[in-house]
Amino acid sequence: MLVLITYDVSTVTTAGQRRLRLVSKACQAYGQRVQNSVFECVVDATQFKLLKLKLLDIIDEEQDSLRFYRLGNDYKGKIEHVGVKESLDMEGPLIL
Amino acid sequence: MLVLITYDVSTVTTAGQRRLRLVSKACQAYGQRVQNSVFECVVDATQFKLLKLKLLDIIDEEQDSLRFYRLGNDYKGKIEHVGVKESLDMEGPLIL
Repeated sequence: MLVLITYDVSTVTTAGQRRLRLVSKACQAYGQRVQNSVFECVVDATQFKLLKLKLLDIIDEEQDSLRFYRLGNDYKGKIEHVGVKESLDMEGPLIL
Repeated sequence: MLVLITYDVSTVTTAGQRRLRLVSKACQAYGQRVQNSVFECVVDATQFKLLKLKLLDIIDEEQDSLRFYRLGNDYKGKIEHVGVKESLDMEGPLIL
């Protein structure tokens, strides 16, 4: 199924920027980044559980928010895009 | 039906900040802002067309991107939220 994940984080701080990079990296294992803080992941139920646990471990629940939208398997035709194709990767590469 | 609208815009410039405020205002006529650049709107097919036209008029298609996800009428139970409840309204009130 397709799960849309939206992540609200302040990237004013370097810690926030780092969390966004880590969320992006975790999500991109299952899908793609379609906007700066929007990810589309194709997962089964088990992968979804694991991904959620991983993301909960990364984010700061006191400052950030994370939303999950389950779009099911029949998601093509439910999504429309307007404007520039890819998000500007303002975060740069992840250096560990 | 519920339509999720995600808007990617650089708010580094005041013009970008202004576009985000206008998109927010247009979307909030039909729903709510759930994250800084994520809006959930409950619309019928005609309202959806009108809202899209309005948003296309606001955004800069060369710089921004807008995505629409149609979640249908049976959307409750498909959405999960983690972390802080509401987006920090970093944009402030819209003054025209």
